[in-house]
Amino acid sequence: MQTTATDLEGRIAAAPGSFRILTGDRPTGPLHLGHYFGTLANRVRLQRAGVELFVLVADYQVLTDRDVADRLTEHVEGLVADYLATGIDPSTATIFQHSAVPALNQLMLPFLSLVSVAELSRNPTVKDEIAASRQASVSGLMFTYPVHQAADILFCKANLVPVGRDQLPHQEITRTVARRFNERYGPVFPVPDALLSAAPSLLGTDGQKMSKSRGNAIALSAGPDETARLIKGAVTDTDRHITFAPDTRPQVSNLVLLAALCQGRDPHAVAAEIGAGGAAALKKVVTDSVNEFLRPIRARRAELAADRTYLRRVLDEGNERARAIADRTLTEVRTAMTS
Amino acid sequence: MQTTATDLEGRIAAAPGSFRILTGDRPTGPLHLGHYFGTLANRVRLQRAGVELFVLVADYQVLTDRDVADRLTEHVEGLVADYLATGIDPSTATIFQHSAVPALNQLMLPFLSLVSVAELSRNPTVKDEIAASRQASVSGLMFTYPVHQAADILFCKANLVPVGRDQLPHQEITRTVARRFNERYGPVFPVPDALLSAAPSLLGTDGQKMSKSRGNAIALSAGPDETARLIKGAVTDTDRHITFAPDTRPQVSNLVLLAALCQGRDPHAVAAEIGAGGAAALKKVVTDSVNEFLRPIRARRAELAADRTYLRRVLDEGNERARAIADRTLTEVRTAMTS
Repeated sequence: MQTTATDLEGRIAAAPGSFRILTGDRPTGPLHLGHYFGTLANRVRLQRAGVELFVLVADYQVLTDRDVADRLTEHVEGLVADYLATGIDPSTATIFQHSAVPALNQLMLPFLSLVSVAELSRNPTVKDEIAASRQASVSGLMFTYPVHQAADILFCKANLVPVGRDQLPHQEITRTVARRFNERYGPVFPVPDALLSAAPSLLGTDGQKMSKSRGNAIALSAGPDETARLIKGAVTDTDRHITFAPDTRPQVSNLVLLAALCQGRDPHAVAAEIGAGGAAALKKVVTDSVNEFLRPIRARRAELAADRTYLRRVLDEGNERARAIADRTLTEVRTAMTS
Repeated sequence: MQTTATDLEGRIAAAPGSFRILTGDRPTGPLHLGHYFGTLANRVRLQRAGVELFVLVADYQVLTDRDVADRLTEHVEGLVADYLATGIDPSTATIFQHSAVPALNQLMLPFLSLVSVAELSRNPTVKDEIAASRQASVSGLMFTYPVHQAADILFCKANLVPVGRDQLPHQEITRTVARRFNERYGPVFPVPDALLSAAPSLLGTDGQKMSKSRGNAIALSAGPDETARLIKGAVTDTDRHITFAPDTRPQVSNLVLLAALCQGRDPHAVAAEIGAGGAAALKKVVTDSVNEFLRPIRARRAELAADRTYLRRVLDEGNERARAIADRTLTEVRTAMTS
């Protein structure tokens, strides 16, 4: 049975040191405010509370994306800079790359034997493609992705995985793999809990899902002018009286929420303060709040980006740590399976 | 277009040094005469002709077979002893294990991206299981097996793969992966040719498919007494006049064929020589022929089996060579994909 988020938060607060989190990102470009308020802030919070953090730069999963692969090193280092600038502490977090941890990738083979094609087909993304008769567009990599993710999580014996609601089915494959492995070969893996994100979901400046490729996202590394320009172009409505009503006024409310998150205040209070100032006043507040909020992060990020040697060292050390752990786990797995 | 076996044999004879073969076995137990006349003899012949041999001990693919995994080291070393006893020369052949070559296994990830779920579903074994509504019994490992095999073949850039007719569809996935990789990312891989086996198919002593698990196979490592016992129990028929007529007298003809293969003679000649001697005379000829044929192989195998340090060294050296090649190929793959 899945524990509820509240139970889990209670257990984490009671004994943070007994939790290890696996989380990470595909190095497809700069992280933005959606990432920050959606997951980064939560990772930093958990790390500061004493939870151990493993952060994966999933460079193998993007190799096949031509536009990304061409600038892979830049994207990987940029991701590390984003992590460190937002407060992830590399002295206790392990930041590492798929490509540097061969034993992790090798866990895919025994793990693939523990799940059936029927189970892999239940993955909602795969199911949608197959239902739409686009089976040919589901690659073997997409199909086996949840097993690769199980290897990511289990190689370091993470027992906690922060996920959005849409990722729960993937996460369930990890739990299945862990459970079946333990049943068949003896207890090696924790069965990790999914920590459902309570974070509000930010929209892009156009009111659509925030995404770098849509050009509607404010990157953590964006300058004040770019930020102002993006917010100036944001979609609003004609009611000059600013309120926070996500259901009826999604675009305006999204801007209010953004300002509120940056100020660490309640969105209703932020809206009330703007009152009848209209979209122009709202956008000014949002721009100032975002720029104020991002100022120290940007400064730190600029320093980090200028010191590639340091970024590389953080990755090298993380990779080294991850490799040692993965080698140990792979040996345990082989021993369990052959005795 | 697939070249015909005859074309291919001509090209091999003309320039053996331009061919590299990938072949191998799952370490599930001792090799038997079916393996010898089916594939081992051919490998030795090709190696002696000057073709470079890579021989894979597929230890990762059997980890999930409980009965086998328990005695994995024994099976792996036994396989190496079988190889060397039958004439594979480790000074030019590379004998290696899946588990020792992490970069080979990592090739699975980019390769999985090059084939679709629809293509993987066309694998006859998988198709049979799914058609019989046993989709739940097709594991992710079985489903992705042809991609793992593509990694086996392509990591060392083998351009020739000896296969039985039933393995052709698997082999086609390797060709697809090589072709698509080269098209998308630049020329890295040869598109390997399948070398269809011309070997006669030996049945077990019970007239069924020869297989260790059926107890109808004469292992290369079996002693003369065990061999005699197995042949004594072989199924024959009531016609005392011995002939070679596989279609009408499969069991008797199979014994004649076995004797003929061991003697290096034509099966009709062997049958004529026995004439009206009946099953007893046939079985005596077969037993003598097999024991005579296996005598030097057994002697050499016994020596090898007693020298585990040497077997281990052969594997260590092969693993080392394979690792260096796999690392180089993985780097080439990553470079091609990220530039």
